[in-house]
Amino acid sequence: MPQKFDIHIIGCGSALPTRKHLPSCQAVDVRDKLLLLDCGEGAQLAWRKTGLNWQRITHIFLTHAHGDHVFGLPGFLSTMGLLGRTAPLYLHGPSSLQTYVEFMKAHFFADISYDLHFEAVDTTQHRCIFEDRSMEVWSLPLKHRLPCCGYLIKEKPGQRHIQREMIDFYEIPTWAINNIKAGQDWTTATGEVIANSRLTSPADPVRSYAYCSDTMPVAGLTEWCQGVDLMYHEATYAEAERALAQKYFHSTAHQAAEVAHAAKVKRLLLGHFSSRYEDEQLLLNEAKEVFPETLLAHEELKITL
Amino acid sequence: MPQKFDIHIIGCGSALPTRKHLPSCQAVDVRDKLLLLDCGEGAQLAWRKTGLNWQRITHIFLTHAHGDHVFGLPGFLSTMGLLGRTAPLYLHGPSSLQTYVEFMKAHFFADISYDLHFEAVDTTQHRCIFEDRSMEVWSLPLKHRLPCCGYLIKEKPGQRHIQREMIDFYEIPTWAINNIKAGQDWTTATGEVIANSRLTSPADPVRSYAYCSDTMPVAGLTEWCQGVDLMYHEATYAEAERALAQKYFHSTAHQAAEVAHAAKVKRLLLGHFSSRYEDEQLLLNEAKEVFPETLLAHEELKITL
Repeated sequence: MPQKFDIHIIGCGSALPTRKHLPSCQAVDVRDKLLLLDCGEGAQLAWRKTGLNWQRITHIFLTHAHGDHVFGLPGFLSTMGLLGRTAPLYLHGPSSLQTYVEFMKAHFFADISYDLHFEAVDTTQHRCIFEDRSMEVWSLPLKHRLPCCGYLIKEKPGQRHIQREMIDFYEIPTWAINNIKAGQDWTTATGEVIANSRLTSPADPVRSYAYCSDTMPVAGLTEWCQGVDLMYHEATYAEAERALAQKYFHSTAHQAAEVAHAAKVKRLLLGHFSSRYEDEQLLLNEAKEVFPETLLAHEELKITL
Repeated sequence: MPQKFDIHIIGCGSALPTRKHLPSCQAVDVRDKLLLLDCGEGAQLAWRKTGLNWQRITHIFLTHAHGDHVFGLPGFLSTMGLLGRTAPLYLHGPSSLQTYVEFMKAHFFADISYDLHFEAVDTTQHRCIFEDRSMEVWSLPLKHRLPCCGYLIKEKPGQRHIQREMIDFYEIPTWAINNIKAGQDWTTATGEVIANSRLTSPADPVRSYAYCSDTMPVAGLTEWCQGVDLMYHEATYAEAERALAQKYFHSTAHQAAEVAHAAKVKRLLLGHFSSRYEDEQLLLNEAKEVFPETLLAHEELKITL
């Protein structure tokens, strides 16, 4: 069974509040480490519905300094303090947000029980900005009204799977197993070399998730997000409002689908819906004309990769 | 029919988020002018459930610089801008909040379409800090871990009610009506003086609402809030947690009831409940032992005075 790689949608509306949507926030659960993507107002209030543990959040990635992506952050950070967090927390985002985080901390939660680190992201570069044993996070330069970047979360390749019956057959000792999982052949006592491919089956395919909000269509995503399992792409407007999308540096659902098609992603998830649409079926239909494997985001949606 | 004086509870929880409560926020509708009291996170999201019009908000009164009372403010202010507000908006609160409002405006909504004024309140004084034709708002010095004050909203006395049949009987002309409503007698063409009390009935009684959160019990409230129609008093804890209430400068429900009893208020509304109580019935019971006319606040509650 593959290890966890789940996307939890906490909010997928845009700036104006509606009865239906919260502003942008997502949690990504990679092998029980939680990454938060943006933190719109109300994120801490909605968090409990996810059933996820506050203390497993290790990193928060922020896309840009618009209120609907960051006004939930002070409450989220101070609540983690009230809950007794001691593990350090790492924030990543455009440098302008560092001032905001530092101001809020100094004025409202200077005495929190954990260390808060801010790492500025160069939103003009596609770079690996974080990695650990199991994943890499890459910045995705986006085009919005102010510095903005999305994030690509990629698993690192896992180990090959041992074929238990072959291990038993060749009486391979326990100490050798990790080398074989890593790809080594096995040499028996009689000198026979057993090819690794006979002893193991391939590692699980590497999974990846791209979070692209807020942005106009960006050509670079075709290459950076090539073949990802899931792409979340903002789809603020329908085609009829294409001029507005252009004016405000947003995308239509149709444009989001064109990006997904060009990048040959497996599935496209639409979000960041304008408050003008009571029902986003129109957006879904317009996207599916270009890219059939499209889904609408909604609060409390969980997608397992 | 008396003019509108409604209290809308938007949030009545305390700092830790629960599935049940939003943090502190209330709207007071005095003759179709809306005052906001505190603005905890999620206030703008919950606002639409009130059915109230954003553009009728004229003043926001803030009690103190704790996140659960002010983290909803940036979203609220920027959304009013997105909705095209042009009327100036007046914020009142401890001076430390002015820096916060100015920082957020400069960083997130510098280009809003309306003027935002901040008027610092001396939280140590019981003073009239705002008045217009129909009401006065007074500060109520509270005792919390940092400068904090509540607010007393008092109607101004209205005019006496004309007795239509007496006006007809004495054939009093229209131009004299306002003077009579204001209390003047009427002298007929033959020189007879008709006492005002024969021409009018008394004005509606003056109504008042006291908002007291967050605070330990404060003796001064007895005098300042004497006889108010409704007192909202924080009741973060039950009696079993009295030591915690003391430690964190909060009140128990029992203490809130003692304040209400001493001030001879008509009704007491409890709120700012700790997240530890799944059901606040215990708090209500403890308060009612001292002051039977007690109610529990809850989101979407509307009380008409």
